[in-house]
Amino acid sequence: MTTANDRVNGKRPKPRVVERRNRDAAVLAAAISVMSERGYAATSIQEVADRVGVLKGSLYHYFSSKEELLFRIIEESYMESIDIVAQTQALGLPAIDELSEYLRRLCMVYLGNVDRANIYFAETRHLTGERLQTTKLRGREFERHVRDLITRAQEDGDVDTTLDVRLLSRYVIGSLNSVRSWPSRSGQTFSNDAMADAFVRLTRSALGAPPSASA
Amino acid sequence: MTTANDRVNGKRPKPRVVERRNRDAAVLAAAISVMSERGYAATSIQEVADRVGVLKGSLYHYFSSKEELLFRIIEESYMESIDIVAQTQALGLPAIDELSEYLRRLCMVYLGNVDRANIYFAETRHLTGERLQTTKLRGREFERHVRDLITRAQEDGDVDTTLDVRLLSRYVIGSLNSVRSWPSRSGQTFSNDAMADAFVRLTRSALGAPPSASA
Repeated sequence: MTTANDRVNGKRPKPRVVERRNRDAAVLAAAISVMSERGYAATSIQEVADRVGVLKGSLYHYFSSKEELLFRIIEESYMESIDIVAQTQALGLPAIDELSEYLRRLCMVYLGNVDRANIYFAETRHLTGERLQTTKLRGREFERHVRDLITRAQEDGDVDTTLDVRLLSRYVIGSLNSVRSWPSRSGQTFSNDAMADAFVRLTRSALGAPPSASA
Repeated sequence: MTTANDRVNGKRPKPRVVERRNRDAAVLAAAISVMSERGYAATSIQEVADRVGVLKGSLYHYFSSKEELLFRIIEESYMESIDIVAQTQALGLPAIDELSEYLRRLCMVYLGNVDRANIYFAETRHLTGERLQTTKLRGREFERHVRDLITRAQEDGDVDTTLDVRLLSRYVIGSLNSVRSWPSRSGQTFSNDAMADAFVRLTRSALGAPPSASA
């Protein structure tokens, strides 16, 4: 199946390009599934190849190493969060509401991709060299974005100013990163929407912000 | 050095018993250090033995397998949290204040043992059989304790009742479990006490509880 993105200048992409992209996605999905079951260190490229249904040798046409596979998984997750920054900035909301919307959408991404989110948070330490530096830099940019939004919300008078913004942002980022563990906890299951809404409401309350107009 | 616990019926323990206990503690500390650096799967018993300064063969006098080492690390962490349940129940506080004190003390344990806490949360999936069942059961007991305290605080009128207690407890447990990541985040460092106090204050605010009398 082709999508609008597959057509450049109105031309259909060559079948080989589409095939390559589909195979890439299949390899990433298989790698996410194996790594989330076994952890990075115990993941074998052989098992990823088996799940895709190709020979191990041909997998190396798509990825040069297990570490590159891990990096691609982390990059995919990061790129979605970058899209959300742009989308929520474009809404033109007060800082506290932009923060709420940013957190709500990130919750939905994490809850919709729990295996990938687990890899993102648990396996980054296995990256090395330039890949590790890139990922660390992006982590710091993510933290800075949250901190800046909270600072602006403090300046607007919407967030408690008696606690240091660094403590506030550690709390918000830590609790956000743990949302991926909510579905596996005991008890009745809630929809991803209900969990994301509860998360945003509790976080606003923690920060001393008024309830959202839309909530 | 002997402690009150080492003396049973007023007798000093035999030197061999003390030596065994010290060696046990040294092995656990070395295992925590190696596992937190490399992850469980990539941890070798040889490296643990090297750090303790004994031959690999003699390590097996203390632990039967790598999995038993992991289980002992997790048990040690669990036993401390059980002590805190008893200590905070003994204070005779209203539920919201018992919850606050329970969370504050757990924060201090996690912040004082970040490597061990990381293993506790990241590596449990590598346990198997009875050890896995025991650990899962204890996780459920921990969750039930938090849920019960929140329910009682709701009944006392101290916590928001418009959100399901299961969502409230997922939020509290998730954000508590992420406290171990606070020290590694960028920016100025805070004392463990300051971080634990901020965590409790923000959690009370999230739950819609009045500020603590002591804060």
